Amino acid sequence: MRNVAIIGTGHSKFGARTDVNLQELAWEAVKQALEEANIDQKEIQYFSVGNAGMWSSENLPAIVVGEYCGLTTKGTMRVEAACASGSAALREAYLAVKSGEVDVAMAIGVEQMHQSPNPNVVEMIGRAGSYFWEFENFGLTFPGYYALYATAYMAKYGLKEEDLGKIAIKAHHYGSLNPYAHFQKEISMEEYMKSKPVAWPLKIYDSSPITDGAAAIILASEDFARKVTDSPVWIVSQGVSSGFANLSRKSDFTTIEAAREAADMAYKKAGINREDSWKVFDVAEVHDCFTIAEIIAYEDLGFARRGEGVNLARENQTYIGGRIPVNVDGGLKAKGHPIGATGVSMAVSLARQLLYRAPNKGMQVEVKNGMALAHNVGGTGHYGYVTIFSTRRPSQ
Amino acid sequence: MRNVAIIGTGHSKFGARTDVNLQELAWEAVKQALEEANIDQKEIQYFSVGNAGMWSSENLPAIVVGEYCGLTTKGTMRVEAACASGSAALREAYLAVKSGEVDVAMAIGVEQMHQSPNPNVVEMIGRAGSYFWEFENFGLTFPGYYALYATAYMAKYGLKEEDLGKIAIKAHHYGSLNPYAHFQKEISMEEYMKSKPVAWPLKIYDSSPITDGAAAIILASEDFARKVTDSPVWIVSQGVSSGFANLSRKSDFTTIEAAREAADMAYKKAGINREDSWKVFDVAEVHDCFTIAEIIAYEDLGFARRGEGVNLARENQTYIGGRIPVNVDGGLKAKGHPIGATGVSMAVSLARQLLYRAPNKGMQVEVKNGMALAHNVGGTGHYGYVTIFSTRRPSQ
Repeated sequence: MRNVAIIGTGHSKFGARTDVNLQELAWEAVKQALEEANIDQKEIQYFSVGNAGMWSSENLPAIVVGEYCGLTTKGTMRVEAACASGSAALREAYLAVKSGEVDVAMAIGVEQMHQSPNPNVVEMIGRAGSYFWEFENFGLTFPGYYALYATAYMAKYGLKEEDLGKIAIKAHHYGSLNPYAHFQKEISMEEYMKSKPVAWPLKIYDSSPITDGAAAIILASEDFARKVTDSPVWIVSQGVSSGFANLSRKSDFTTIEAAREAADMAYKKAGINREDSWKVFDVAEVHDCFTIAEIIAYEDLGFARRGEGVNLARENQTYIGGRIPVNVDGGLKAKGHPIGATGVSMAVSLARQLLYRAPNKGMQVEVKNGMALAHNVGGTGHYGYVTIFSTRRPSQ
Repeated sequence: MRNVAIIGTGHSKFGARTDVNLQELAWEAVKQALEEANIDQKEIQYFSVGNAGMWSSENLPAIVVGEYCGLTTKGTMRVEAACASGSAALREAYLAVKSGEVDVAMAIGVEQMHQSPNPNVVEMIGRAGSYFWEFENFGLTFPGYYALYATAYMAKYGLKEEDLGKIAIKAHHYGSLNPYAHFQKEISMEEYMKSKPVAWPLKIYDSSPITDGAAAIILASEDFARKVTDSPVWIVSQGVSSGFANLSRKSDFTTIEAAREAADMAYKKAGINREDSWKVFDVAEVHDCFTIAEIIAYEDLGFARRGEGVNLARENQTYIGGRIPVNVDGGLKAKGHPIGATGVSMAVSLARQLLYRAPNKGMQVEVKNGMALAHNVGGTGHYGYVTIFSTRRPSQ
């Protein structure tokens, strides 16, 4: 099969972006990606748009984005995988190039959550759980689901609130360095511990915000990539899995099976042992929709053994210079989590890290192996997407 | 690149299916496809779900469908291309197999339009046009858009209401033979001419209905297909294109550019001249959301020259035995148009036709070349998807 390379990346400022509409927001990222790749729209043969929908009254986001960004009449579709919709967009563009259907494809992720037609954000987010059964019957909200993960982890492995605080403090530290981040200020443990409870033990500072944003990435076949860049970042492998809709089917609340399975699929294709994964990657982006999710991700990805992910937080092992730097762009928690954009944003951050193009030197990791990993979860474990990137050309 | 074969097809009864929920409806099609392929769920490595969304309060249709159908923990995503969402699902599964990411994938299309959380169907359908500008400001409804096509065609080529009636009568004729169709009764020209106006010249009998339904198709690599079937139907090529969101950007209302461009892409890959296309295909499915759309499709696909599509209707040339049989399953008009299911339903009908497995002998075409075409339009020309099928193995 063909190798697929990233040849351009773009990222809008994340935040409360009511200054623009959906397509203007997308254009900020698309324009940057085209400029970075030094190509124009006519060379894009296909584009996918990650957008969760329901947060906008616009029912054809791929079409309005395509028209505004000058991508019409190229083929397109909108994809949705809940909070992993951005990774689904990346996958769709990846498959289009890898299959040989096209040579150049763009994945666009965009969400404008501040213009929701439904002001009840708790209900909106609740729909990404088990809506008809658990939300409507039991009022189980999205923070409620992750509070179940947190309390289960506390009971089994002795997690403390302060351990979650360490994740939040790290997120805000790197967010303060990232010009694209929604939140750009440091927080202290004292501020964290005093922050308003949402669903015990989760507080405001444990929770990713309601954010507007867009990210874009241009993928190309090896032949095309060779023509336009001498620094491609390759997609080595991708794993994708799904989880059950209902909590009643979950056997364990200290792991997200879909993410673990997606990681194992990606590792297998890339020839990586999960025990060694932390030695392989120079940097990783994981889905910290809530702080507890980052600790669980450490274990689901093999960065730590079961029950020991919390130690990475306690020992600051996921800062730059630690065992493995994670979410050094601020993560969902501080960079923000515009649903459809997040998965593409992860790929943008990682590609830039691998090329020493982090937007701020303070957030640039040391690149040794030239490899990076993105971990993106949809819903409360309904979707798992794991993608591995490398500066070294994969051998097919 | 790898050849991709259809190894199983499934189709639910279309209609007002308030007797089941979304996942139960999907299962009717998934079960049939698994039985036809004679494999079980564990052999499906990936599945895509075409669902337009907004017609259900369920925000994670791919997850609830996957769980109910026993497809969890396989990788998945939901795809949307307005009324071509089913073709987008087929494309996603096609790319997954063609790229070598998986050997067996299922495309599921499902929509349950009778359980919409928004009772205002006119507004709902209006959202598949240019919602914020043309619908909200000018009240342009979906039938209104297609009435513009009809009046433009009338003015330019002398189309009469009776010509549209011929399309409706054909649709209801074949619908009456199709056990899966929403409408199973013949209509007369007199009934057609007397039917209630919707947006002149379009009447109730020119319009596809609000329908619930599901369809499923199993795709496999050549190696896997050889193991499980001696009668694969191959996907020869696919063309996808997009159109502008706003009418103001359209130059011509007697053609749908995105569909025409998608057809030219598919023809080029398959080595077919558009002038000869009507000689190549034994049967075609086209997107007759309104009768006028079928006449325009004849021309966009090259079955007739510009302005002469109406003659195929007048001369009954698209009945079985005519120049080229079109929509001999009843089409969107009589079979029904459950948005996310339609594109998959087209592929199911065509694969069965090519294998002499039409559900009713009266709707079975004579198979000469073993080739068929599906034409699926999203929105009012926003998406164009054209797929070519053959019983002969494509040479790569």
